[in-house]
Amino acid sequence: MTDRYPLPDLNTLPDDLRTKILEVQEKAGFVPNVFLALARRPAEWRAFFAYHDALMDPESVGRSSPLTKGDREMIVTTTSAANQCLYCVVAHGALLRIYEKKPLVADQVAVNWRKADITPRQRAMLDFAMKVCERSHEIDDADFAALAAHGFTDEDAWDIGAITAFFGLSNRMASFTGMQPNAEFYLMGRVPKQK
Amino acid sequence: MTDRYPLPDLNTLPDDLRTKILEVQEKAGFVPNVFLALARRPAEWRAFFAYHDALMDPESVGRSSPLTKGDREMIVTTTSAANQCLYCVVAHGALLRIYEKKPLVADQVAVNWRKADITPRQRAMLDFAMKVCERSHEIDDADFAALAAHGFTDEDAWDIGAITAFFGLSNRMASFTGMQPNAEFYLMGRVPKQK
Amino acid sequence: MTDRYPLPDLNTLPDDLRTKILEVQEKAGFVPNVFLALARRPAEWRAFFAYHDALMDPESVGRSSPLTKGDREMIVTTTSAANQCLYCVVAHGALLRIYEKKPLVADQVAVNWRKADITPRQRAMLDFAMKVCERSHEIDDADFAALAAHGFTDEDAWDIGAITAFFGLSNRMASFTGMQPNAEFYLMGRVPKQK
Amino acid sequence: MTDRYPLPDLNTLPDDLRTKILEVQEKAGFVPNVFLALARRPAEWRAFFAYHDALMDPESVGRSSPLTKGDREMIVTTTSAANQCLYCVVAHGALLRIYEKKPLVADQVAVNWRKADITPRQRAMLDFAMKVCERSHEIDDADFAALAAHGFTDEDAWDIGAITAFFGLSNRMASFTGMQPNAEFYLMGRVPKQK
Amino acid sequence: MTDRYPLPDLNTLPDDLRTKILEVQEKAGFVPNVFLALARRPAEWRAFFAYHDALMDPESVGRSSPLTKGDREMIVTTTSAANQCLYCVVAHGALLRIYEKKPLVADQVAVNWRKADITPRQRAMLDFAMKVCERSHEIDDADFAALAAHGFTDEDAWDIGAITAFFGLSNRMASFTGMQPNAEFYLMGRVPKQK
Amino acid sequence: MTDRYPLPDLNTLPDDLRTKILEVQEKAGFVPNVFLALARRPAEWRAFFAYHDALMDPESVGRSSPLTKGDREMIVTTTSAANQCLYCVVAHGALLRIYEKKPLVADQVAVNWRKADITPRQRAMLDFAMKVCERSHEIDDADFAALAAHGFTDEDAWDIGAITAFFGLSNRMASFTGMQPNAEFYLMGRVPKQK
Repeated sequence: MTDRYPLPDLNTLPDDLRTKILEVQEKAGFVPNVFLALARRPAEWRAFFAYHDALMDPESVGRSSPLTKGDREMIVTTTSAANQCLYCVVAHGALLRIYEKKPLVADQVAVNWRKADITPRQRAMLDFAMKVCERSHEIDDADFAALAAHGFTDEDAWDIGAITAFFGLSNRMASFTGMQPNAEFYLMGRVPKQK
Repeated sequence: MTDRYPLPDLNTLPDDLRTKILEVQEKAGFVPNVFLALARRPAEWRAFFAYHDALMDPESVGRSSPLTKGDREMIVTTTSAANQCLYCVVAHGALLRIYEKKPLVADQVAVNWRKADITPRQRAMLDFAMKVCERSHEIDDADFAALAAHGFTDEDAWDIGAITAFFGLSNRMASFTGMQPNAEFYLMGRVPKQK
Repeated sequence: MTDRYPLPDLNTLPDDLRTKILEVQEKAGFVPNVFLALARRPAEWRAFFAYHDALMDPESVGRSSPLTKGDREMIVTTTSAANQCLYCVVAHGALLRIYEKKPLVADQVAVNWRKADITPRQRAMLDFAMKVCERSHEIDDADFAALAAHGFTDEDAWDIGAITAFFGLSNRMASFTGMQPNAEFYLMGRVPKQK
Repeated sequence: MTDRYPLPDLNTLPDDLRTKILEVQEKAGFVPNVFLALARRPAEWRAFFAYHDALMDPESVGRSSPLTKGDREMIVTTTSAANQCLYCVVAHGALLRIYEKKPLVADQVAVNWRKADITPRQRAMLDFAMKVCERSHEIDDADFAALAAHGFTDEDAWDIGAITAFFGLSNRMASFTGMQPNAEFYLMGRVPKQK
Repeated sequence: MTDRYPLPDLNTLPDDLRTKILEVQEKAGFVPNVFLALARRPAEWRAFFAYHDALMDPESVGRSSPLTKGDREMIVTTTSAANQCLYCVVAHGALLRIYEKKPLVADQVAVNWRKADITPRQRAMLDFAMKVCERSHEIDDADFAALAAHGFTDEDAWDIGAITAFFGLSNRMASFTGMQPNAEFYLMGRVPKQK
Repeated sequence: MTDRYPLPDLNTLPDDLRTKILEVQEKAGFVPNVFLALARRPAEWRAFFAYHDALMDPESVGRSSPLTKGDREMIVTTTSAANQCLYCVVAHGALLRIYEKKPLVADQVAVNWRKADITPRQRAMLDFAMKVCERSHEIDDADFAALAAHGFTDEDAWDIGAITAFFGLSNRMASFTGMQPNAEFYLMGRVPKQK
């Protein structure tokens, strides 16, 4: 696809975006393309990452949650595979491998989450997420009961559903704009650290 | 469905939320339920409405766009019908009727946008939106060319795609949480104003 | 879509059609377009309305049924929304609002019948109807048992299934011929009567 | 499936039904089950067969049409296969073989009409019919143009669409009521007549 | 479709193919087209028929199985109908009629296997087969349990799944190459043998 | 899923299987699970790998083909992702990376082949393969013409279609039997060789 939305030069961006992006670069060693791709519209960028952080890093907004970082990235990777979003499967699959310390799990949930090597609790979490992703209009009490059987409260269900819904947005943005994952993501978390 | 996520009392909300909600109430005559339903998580609320405003009221963030308010609400209503989201079809259908000054158009696009009484330009806009909604992974150059044939630039395509993606998020939130539209919305814009 | 099948002049129609149409006009205040659209083929018109009346007004053929007029129009509106038929959703949604005396219910079942404010018995009725509409080849004993749990006999199941099947015919006719609902239908039953 | 709707005794039926059914029996050598299955509701029976005859035997209502009897039964068989209706595929497949004098054609269109040994004109006819059957809400001017390229007028399009719509009704009735085709139909038209 | 892959002359084929094909001709009275159609690639031909025989005639490879020849052909016919493969529905439907000694059963399972006149055990067998055919990635323990309730072991499940998978291959080959069933198959097993 | 089909001990297998498996182990450094999983049925194993080799290594059966090893593995990986088969996506994705010498390409085609970094010729090849995979009954002359525009002959089309069909079989076998990819495959071809 034609490159319709070229990445902006970091130096042309508003200060708050540039500062945040440089922090990410400092931490990750590179700038994930989503930070630049969305930056051409600073107001949308700010809302997107504020939403992202509220859902993916609840402590940053003063909320705690029993979902681990690995759980959250597992929802994202599975949702993104269902939506066939290359950027998000590759980028969040990398984070999933790292947080779960399982080099194989991202490929497993991306290809067929029903057969992945995950816990029954995570399986129930993905059942709910995938129904929100594909048939949210059919969600009913039985879906919450299935979550509750694994200890998930309605508050946790909100987390699962909201992460799925937010990345449905992210997936569509990445796909129609032709966003490409950075090459670095493909390998992250695959090779166990040497001591 | 059980009422799992009861609306919070306005007086328990953070000041910035309460202020904004009172402004909306002042203007609309009632508080649309989405403002209260999402308010139980203030950080997500702030991001949601910041994103909403950046897309639906670009002037508020210093950007202009050839899409009219009616165009935008038409995308929202059509997307929400595709996602079978009751809240958004009813609430945004009301706004669509008002902005377009066409009492019949919301029901038309909600039931079958292909046969609605809209312009060829709006039809092309909805073609693109519906593909982002349902098959964003298949969007390609031909889809942008079809928009361009009606004068839409790549920047306008971003608007159409982003509105569709954002309301895909909104639709999923409203559906899985069981959000109900206020009764007022159902009738708004249907009866021509008397002089 | 091009207007391929223009409505015939009432005066050119056979006497029996004209008489019946004038009666409808007398009662409703206008002639619903379906009466004229199908009238260009009088033999089909007669069969269509005979079938319609046998199903929607069983007393007219000497049969009683526990399904109310509201129940019947609810099946029609939901079926027509599933088939994305503008004419039938708008026209029968109006009748549904009037018979049920619920100004919001038609929009609710049209957008997502699973979340409409209806009785559990009506929900079971629509479950059966939607399966006949979309997957009639999969109907089995369990579907009749689910109806029976709400007091519906096999005779009632015939009513539900036949109404769904008949309006599947009606929906396809209206859609491929480009039939448009009269503007009057959009507002009927929405505004409570003033005393 | 349980036999919920047993066939009524011919002698218990109203005179007009019995007379017509005896005529059919005289001509065919047996009573096709649809005549008895629907007879338990005489008013619906009368409307059903009046509609059937108006569409399948237009001369009987004073109308002529370029569609042959074989064309009509081909539409019915293909529609019924798409709706997975056993009764109609078997019964109308028999008529199709007989009218077209092609012992193989019914199985061909039932399994995959796209690869059947039929004329390009019949292929265009089935393209239109299948779109009415499965996606009538998407029919547009291009579909009529594709018919016109093979000499079909808008009046012929009405025939094709109405036959498809009517048998969509018939298919749903037969499937949910568990109607079984008479054994005789399976073999009719398969063995060339001996001289 | 253009005849892209004409059947080769029997005399141009390698000896082992020709010998086997002549044996089939001797037994059946004609050469089923699949034997010639695939023969243009002898190595693939040998693998295809070796696989076929291992699954459809397990005794030939020294294995016994509780699935009868009729059971096996029933799986093939149902799978092939789901894949809309004309060749295999017609050819294997013939064998199904013969092995089951039921002239109607092939048309029944091809149109709608859920309503065919088969045993509950065969119905369970087809439930499993159809899930392997259409959603093999969703097969889980419950599917094997449903088979076990009818006496099928995991070894039998392998048979059912493997036959379905193999004919999914066969169906795709026949469809994309435009393979046509021999006219003889259409009538085989339909007329009870005269004494 | 329960481990229903445990891998057999290599020493219990027939000589020809053991010899071939040891050769594979010698070359790859490990035994890919498919070789053991299918070995519990030696006759099927022999046919499966004979078919595999005839399609994936045509030189081994005395045939040449313009499709490269990378092309072939790209078809397999894309087909397997469409069928959500974990084993084949991971195992053949590894081979694809190696043959194409592109560490990112397997994840790209597995998530969304339409946006992968491949040649237009490979894109056309996958268009055809995916239609054979998902809608083989709709393949027509236009599909062959689209291939021809990129230099693919009808013979090459056979290769593409047959590989897709064969791995549709393989995918279903792997999925319903619960076959797991060896851990080694996940990383192969991802890290450029050091000198």
